[in-house]
Amino acid sequence: MQDNEANQAGQPRTEQSSVDEYPEELQSSQRSGERRDDNTIYIGRKSVSVYALAVVTQFNQGRPIVKLKARGRSISHAVDVTQVVMHRFIPTLKIGEIKITTEELPSEDGRMNKVSSMEIELSK
Amino acid sequence: MQDNEANQAGQPRTEQSSVDEYPEELQSSQRSGERRDDNTIYIGRKSVSVYALAVVTQFNQGRPIVKLKARGRSISHAVDVTQVVMHRFIPTLKIGEIKITTEELPSEDGRMNKVSSMEIELSK
Repeated sequence: MQDNEANQAGQPRTEQSSVDEYPEELQSSQRSGERRDDNTIYIGRKSVSVYALAVVTQFNQGRPIVKLKARGRSISHAVDVTQVVMHRFIPTLKIGEIKITTEELPSEDGRMNKVSSMEIELSK
Repeated sequence: MQDNEANQAGQPRTEQSSVDEYPEELQSSQRSGERRDDNTIYIGRKSVSVYALAVVTQFNQGRPIVKLKARGRSISHAVDVTQVVMHRFIPTLKIGEIKITTEELPSEDGRMNKVSSMEIELSK
């Protein structure tokens, strides 16, 4: 076990760390149409409404399953997205499998940081 | 749908709101032995290690299942707890059912605020 684990997916941070988020190009690819993983929405710092609308749009395009992926603090944000979609847009929304893992990401000084990540599967 | 939903389980907050957390007496009851729900650990603002040790203690006392409950921003914290327990203490930890819901809590001005909540079931 690495010694830096205590600062990994662990201790609360006072500011949102950049490793908490998926890269901007991954997030923005959701709009550009060049999606890496078609039905996956990467949750970052935008408002819950933005992601909720992205989910609704994916379903409206006929996808049977939409996945939310979030890291670190954005995990709470992803959960908020599911609740806004369910209570405001798609009352029949079903929350399927929820996967929790740890990702290792290189920090600026070259060391590996661990950060919790979550994937939530949604269907109508 | 209530109009204040946008500010509920939704929009990012710059500061941790008090409605995000389970009451302190509920959290501290985890140590006093007077537990409301024996195998449930309420995640608040303490460090991940504190909650991770609480999980390990519960398992060591022979409980087959331990539940984590968290609200709002503490949801990310709860996920961190699962990962620290798994990677540092109990490699065989199994993450069982994960429930996501919205709770309504009265705010200081008497209105009801909505906040996302999550329950994670853990077994060895």
